[in-house]
Amino acid sequence: MKILIAPDSFKDCLSAKGVARALAKGIRSILPDVDCIMVPMADGGEGTVESVIDATRGKRIELKVLDPLMRETDSFYGITGDGETAVIEMAAASGIELLKRDERDPWITSTYGTGQLIKDALDQGVRKILLGIGGSATNDGGAGMAQALGVRFSGKFGNIPVHGGGALGELEQIHMEDLDPRIKQTEILVACDVSNPLTGPQGASAVYGPQKGANEKMVQKLDRNLLHFAGLIRDQLGKEVSEIPGAGAAGGLGAGLVAFLDARLMKGFDMIAGVTGLEGQIREADLVITGEGKMDAQTRFGKTPFGVAQLARKYGKPVIGVAGTLEEDASALYELGFDLLMPIQEKPGDLEFSLKNGAWLLERSGERMARLLAMKI
Amino acid sequence: MKILIAPDSFKDCLSAKGVARALAKGIRSILPDVDCIMVPMADGGEGTVESVIDATRGKRIELKVLDPLMRETDSFYGITGDGETAVIEMAAASGIELLKRDERDPWITSTYGTGQLIKDALDQGVRKILLGIGGSATNDGGAGMAQALGVRFSGKFGNIPVHGGGALGELEQIHMEDLDPRIKQTEILVACDVSNPLTGPQGASAVYGPQKGANEKMVQKLDRNLLHFAGLIRDQLGKEVSEIPGAGAAGGLGAGLVAFLDARLMKGFDMIAGVTGLEGQIREADLVITGEGKMDAQTRFGKTPFGVAQLARKYGKPVIGVAGTLEEDASALYELGFDLLMPIQEKPGDLEFSLKNGAWLLERSGERMARLLAMKI
Repeated sequence: MKILIAPDSFKDCLSAKGVARALAKGIRSILPDVDCIMVPMADGGEGTVESVIDATRGKRIELKVLDPLMRETDSFYGITGDGETAVIEMAAASGIELLKRDERDPWITSTYGTGQLIKDALDQGVRKILLGIGGSATNDGGAGMAQALGVRFSGKFGNIPVHGGGALGELEQIHMEDLDPRIKQTEILVACDVSNPLTGPQGASAVYGPQKGANEKMVQKLDRNLLHFAGLIRDQLGKEVSEIPGAGAAGGLGAGLVAFLDARLMKGFDMIAGVTGLEGQIREADLVITGEGKMDAQTRFGKTPFGVAQLARKYGKPVIGVAGTLEEDASALYELGFDLLMPIQEKPGDLEFSLKNGAWLLERSGERMARLLAMKI
Repeated sequence: MKILIAPDSFKDCLSAKGVARALAKGIRSILPDVDCIMVPMADGGEGTVESVIDATRGKRIELKVLDPLMRETDSFYGITGDGETAVIEMAAASGIELLKRDERDPWITSTYGTGQLIKDALDQGVRKILLGIGGSATNDGGAGMAQALGVRFSGKFGNIPVHGGGALGELEQIHMEDLDPRIKQTEILVACDVSNPLTGPQGASAVYGPQKGANEKMVQKLDRNLLHFAGLIRDQLGKEVSEIPGAGAAGGLGAGLVAFLDARLMKGFDMIAGVTGLEGQIREADLVITGEGKMDAQTRFGKTPFGVAQLARKYGKPVIGVAGTLEEDASALYELGFDLLMPIQEKPGDLEFSLKNGAWLLERSGERMARLLAMKI
C-alpha cells in the first residue's frame, strides 16, 4: 500500500515536513510495510522554500543580501534536487519581519534584496524560478527588485536609484537595456493568492500600506506613485499591469515581476504542486493524507489541504484531512472531496498543550489511522 | 454489516444508552444499511438498572420504600423484557446519596429498603434477581435487608429490630423460619467489584466506614459488631462469610446476602453481560464498539470497556474503544484486545465544553468511524 502524506504546516506548532514525518512515524509503527511518501506542502508563504527542498531533496542556499532598508542581512533560498528550479520567499530578503516595528516605512523600503536573490539563483544556472511573495515590508512596485537585476530608472535630473515607494513619483524613464539577459531564458512563476489590483481602494497601498507603516496621507501618495509607475510601464513597456488581479500583492511587486521579468502569477498551491510533482504522486497513491493546524469551512478557499483533496478526488483516491482544531463547520468539506476529517486531540486541554505536543499527537493520529486500516472488518 | 455498540456511561455527561445512541446516529448517517445493535453496559453501579432495561427492552418499576434512616422515599428497580429477572441498585433504597451530609451515621442506617425492593420483585414473579450494591450508606451487614424479607433477630430481652450497625452487637439469635419462602426458588446474583473481607483492617467498617460518617471509635465498634454478627452466622447458619472476598462490600451487605439469601457474588461486568446477552451479540457482530468517559491504563482493571474487549477478542472481533479523555498510558490497552482507541475531541477546549457537547461529539465520532469503514482503500 502507498500512502501519500501531503500536509501544510501546523502554524505555531510544526513545519509541513514535521507534520508529515510525525504522521508517517505513527503509520509505520503499525504498518511497517506501507510505503509512506512525504510531500510537505506550502502555499507560497512562509515555509515554501523548506517544503520544496524537502519534497525534492533539494538544497538550501544561504547568502547575504540587502534588507528592506538596504542593510546587509542573512537570507536564503532553495534549489530543487534536480538543480533546475530555484524557490524564493521574498520575505527572506524584503519581509516585514526583518524590520523592527518603528522601522516600518513603505516610503523607503525596497525589494532590492529580492532581486539579489533572483540574481544569485540565475548564477546557479536554474531555468525556472518560483517566487512566494507574502509578508512584504515594501510598496515599491518591484522597482527595487528590478534595479538589482539591471533595470534603470531616470527622471529630470538623471538616474534615480529607487529605494522605496516614495521615489516612484519622480520617475520619467524606464531603461531595460541592462536587464540581466538570463531573465529571458528563465521561467518565473509567482505564488499569489490575493487578487488585489495595483492601485485604488483595493490596491496595494490602501489595503496593505497601513500595516507596513503608512499613515493615511502616505497611503494616498503611495497609491498615486504606483498609478504613475503603472502609467510608465504601460507607455514605455507596453504592458497594462494596473488591473491584473494580484498586481497589488507585496506592495506592487506582483506588477513589477510581470512588467520587468515577464513573470506569471499563479495560485500558490498550483505552483508548489507543480514543483513537487504532487499530482503524479497522488495518481500512484492508494490513500492521500493532508491537513493543517485548523480546518473549517474556510479551508475550501484555496488553502493547501483543499487543493490536495481536489487532486485526490480527480484520481478517485480517498483523502483524509488531519487537523489540530476541527471546527464545527468543517463538515462542509465532506461535500468537497474529503472522505474523512480527523482531529488529533485526545482529551480536553488548552491550545498551548496541543501546540507543544503536536508532533506526538500527530504520531498517535497516524497510528490510529493505520490501526483502522489494519482492522479486518 | 452488524456493529455492536456496548459502551459504559460517560460520567457526568451521558448515560450508556445516550452514548450508544449518539454513536449509532453518527454511524447510520454515513452507512444507513449497517445494523447497529445497542447494548448499553454498566458495572453494577449507578446506571445498571437503566442499562439492563434498555438492553432487554424491560420496564422500570417505581415504588416507595424506607430509606437508610427508615423514612419513606421514592425508589425504583427494573424488570427485564422477558419478565424473568429483576435488577436492583441497592443505592436506590439504601444509598448514601439519599442522605444529607450531616445525616450520615452508619450506627443507625439500615439496608431495610433494599430488602423491600427484593420483596417487591418477588411479588412480580421474577425467578432471578440481580443486585448492584455500590454507594451504600450502611454498615449493618445486611441485617435490615434480611428483616424486610422475614428474618428475625433476638437478644437477651426478645426480638431486636436491627436498624443500623450499632444494634448488631446485642444480637444473640437469628431466626430464619419466616424468611420469605420465594427466596429459595430465586437465583440472586450480586455485582461486586471490590474484594474487601467483612472485618479487619481491609473490612467494611475500616475502609468505607469513615466516608459513611463513622469516626475512629465508631469504626472500631462497627467492626467488632460485624465480627460478632459473622460469628452468629457461622454458629447458627453454618456459613463462614467473614473471609469471602466482597463480603465487606456495602457495609457487609455482601455477607448478609450470602448468609441469608444464598446469593452469589460476581463481577459486575459478568452479571450485566449475562443478563444482556452480550456474548451472543458479540458472536454475531462484525465490529464491536465500546467506551467510557475516560480511558487509561486503569481501564484494564475490571471496567466495562475492558470486559467488552475481552469478549470481542474471544470471538476474534475487532473492537474500538471510544473515550472523551484518552490518557497517554491508554496505549497499554492495545496489548489487551483493543484494536483502536478513539478520542472524541475535535479541538483544544475545556472539559466543561466536552461534557456539554458529549452527545454531539460522540455522534461525530461515530460518523468518522463509518467514513473510515466506507473508504475504499
